[in-house]
Amino acid sequence: MDSSFSNILCSLQKSGSFVNTLIAILTICGQQLFSSFTFSCPCQPGNNLYYGSAFLIIPALVLLVIGYALRSQTWMMTKESCCSSSPHLRSVNSLQRKLACLMFFSITGRALVAPLTWLAVTLLTGTYYECAASEYASVEQYSMFNNYSEPERQEILAEFPCFEQISPDMLMVRDEVALQLRYQSQMWGWTLIAVATLVAFLSCCLARCCSPLTSLQHQYWCTHMRNERQLFEEAAEQHSRVLITQRIKELFGFVPGSEDVRHIRIPSCQDW
Amino acid sequence: MDSSFSNILCSLQKSGSFVNTLIAILTICGQQLFSSFTFSCPCQPGNNLYYGSAFLIIPALVLLVIGYALRSQTWMMTKESCCSSSPHLRSVNSLQRKLACLMFFSITGRALVAPLTWLAVTLLTGTYYECAASEYASVEQYSMFNNYSEPERQEILAEFPCFEQISPDMLMVRDEVALQLRYQSQMWGWTLIAVATLVAFLSCCLARCCSPLTSLQHQYWCTHMRNERQLFEEAAEQHSRVLITQRIKELFGFVPGSEDVRHIRIPSCQDW
Amino acid sequence: MDSSFSNILCSLQKSGSFVNTLIAILTICGQQLFSSFTFSCPCQPGNNLYYGSAFLIIPALVLLVIGYALRSQTWMMTKESCCSSSPHLRSVNSLQRKLACLMFFSITGRALVAPLTWLAVTLLTGTYYECAASEYASVEQYSMFNNYSEPERQEILAEFPCFEQISPDMLMVRDEVALQLRYQSQMWGWTLIAVATLVAFLSCCLARCCSPLTSLQHQYWCTHMRNERQLFEEAAEQHSRVLITQRIKELFGFVPGSEDVRHIRIPSCQDW
Repeated sequence: MDSSFSNILCSLQKSGSFVNTLIAILTICGQQLFSSFTFSCPCQPGNNLYYGSAFLIIPALVLLVIGYALRSQTWMMTKESCCSSSPHLRSVNSLQRKLACLMFFSITGRALVAPLTWLAVTLLTGTYYECAASEYASVEQYSMFNNYSEPERQEILAEFPCFEQISPDMLMVRDEVALQLRYQSQMWGWTLIAVATLVAFLSCCLARCCSPLTSLQHQYWCTHMRNERQLFEEAAEQHSRVLITQRIKELFGFVPGSEDVRHIRIPSCQDW
Repeated sequence: MDSSFSNILCSLQKSGSFVNTLIAILTICGQQLFSSFTFSCPCQPGNNLYYGSAFLIIPALVLLVIGYALRSQTWMMTKESCCSSSPHLRSVNSLQRKLACLMFFSITGRALVAPLTWLAVTLLTGTYYECAASEYASVEQYSMFNNYSEPERQEILAEFPCFEQISPDMLMVRDEVALQLRYQSQMWGWTLIAVATLVAFLSCCLARCCSPLTSLQHQYWCTHMRNERQLFEEAAEQHSRVLITQRIKELFGFVPGSEDVRHIRIPSCQDW
Repeated sequence: MDSSFSNILCSLQKSGSFVNTLIAILTICGQQLFSSFTFSCPCQPGNNLYYGSAFLIIPALVLLVIGYALRSQTWMMTKESCCSSSPHLRSVNSLQRKLACLMFFSITGRALVAPLTWLAVTLLTGTYYECAASEYASVEQYSMFNNYSEPERQEILAEFPCFEQISPDMLMVRDEVALQLRYQSQMWGWTLIAVATLVAFLSCCLARCCSPLTSLQHQYWCTHMRNERQLFEEAAEQHSRVLITQRIKELFGFVPGSEDVRHIRIPSCQDW
């Protein structure tokens, strides 16, 4: 059972930084492309929040699910946790439970790279947050808002992210509110980035601490895992070809691909 | 245990200057790209400081953590410091503690290249500092500020980094304050560069002084380390292939890759 | 110990002129790029001097430290001077002290190429000096300065490097002061270049004079040094491979790269 643990660490160590960087860069490019094409704030009180939040959260959720789905370890773990419902096949001891936990956290960590990058980039850009939070901006310091009732004020605020529908005396206020919202958005973005980085680093340290393998053993296991997969695939390929060749010979009387086909037989109905 | 020490010095000497230069150049380019896209000072009293500081410090923090994470020696050390909690496995003497300290400082030094470059470049550019420190600029010498109370003065100063919201009589003051803040920012930048360079040089000298190896010994250890890693990898590869081949022969009845496959066996359910 | 002396002369002769020219050209390009981006004189009395001096001196200091750090001989000397604190290991006679001095001057000479180029280029350009020395320009010959007190005069002089804040009657004076400062700056630059060239030439002559080797001897030593390094490396490589092969055989039970692997052993946990 140590092997699966080592497998996690191997894959974590080897392709970790490269693949994660690639995912992050793709996410950033995708976000820039995507938001420039499709995002246009509705500027209606009550809708702004849902619209902006949907653009913030749903792509992150989709990326999270894709992140889980693309890890082959997810399927391995699903399989194992299902199989373990039949207790006579394998006894789940505490070490295995620990390893399953560790594997789950490892998969989650990898799957979170893309959604967190999405959230960080969108919050640093600030467009979605500006639309979503426009109604809730604090405008107590502006005297011109005292003439309006609460619903009117919300309607005016909701129209701030759209450019053409603002009365001239509101232009300066709108610019200041936009700056303020962008400030909030970027501060959330930075907080997210700082927390995610620290949590990732600390959990990596912790995972490495809990590993029962020394550095050399770990290296050996990585090599061993790679070889095992490779050789098993080769052997399985060869084994199945030999098996099928034998069966075809029984059916048709010759080996497929052989040059001298002398004895062929017509398969009877029972053979099929 | 001398080997790990020598390993540090080897890696420090070999890839040191090249890799560090690359990191520094990438950081500078990234900073220029990044700040031109996302930075827009909120120009509100109380927020400027947080905003500017976040852009100064959090990227540096993230770069520091990434710098630590990308060094494989970090993980080696984490592992070792964890393992040493079991005293019967390895006795930690004073030499090993010294070596661990030295390794920690070596890793930290490398990890600090990117964040210090970020800080130096941003301080020399001055945009972030100008936003962060705008409220705290000294304006005692300007008589026009005597008419304002302290909060009003702070509000006016906070609006200095934004261009369109300044009254005409303040234009000259704003330019002078901007020059003054840029001067402070660049002086901090230069101080940082000078101190970092001197500390790096002196600590390199000190590390070389404290090394128990002469120049020739050091060279031999570098060769030895490289060979050890290389030969161990070869041996581990071969060893694991032999092991797996034996196991596959038990399962399928033949060695993968062999031409004459005469006896194959169908693995039973228990074999899997 | 003569070998290290010869080593200096060899390396000095071989890569000397080419590397130094390259360093100088890179420094000039870097200076032009750098100063066009970041330099803007604060134009405040008291700050100008610090600002201009920081741009003049700190890059030169950083380049000096980098120059020292990139010479492998620096580390060799640091090591040797540290080791000589234990008197029973090696007796330092007067010849060795002379050689250490010579080596130090050789390293310093190489390390000074970049900072001296920086200083010469910046002084010939004159922008930094103009900012730094603007307060201290001699304006006794201009009658209009008699009306001002000393602090007022300094404030006016400090604003000379900035273009837009000058009263019209000062325009001509400012142009003349700028010409005067540029003249001083370029004279300092030329003096520096002349002195550095002469000192470099004389010290090369002197070093060759003091050498106890004739031209043929010197050539022989260069060959000898190269061969010594090369053969030592070969021997170290072979020695360490033999050592490691033995250790791997103990661990895995076979020699890496051998064709007939009959007996392999599974290493126990204690072996790692």
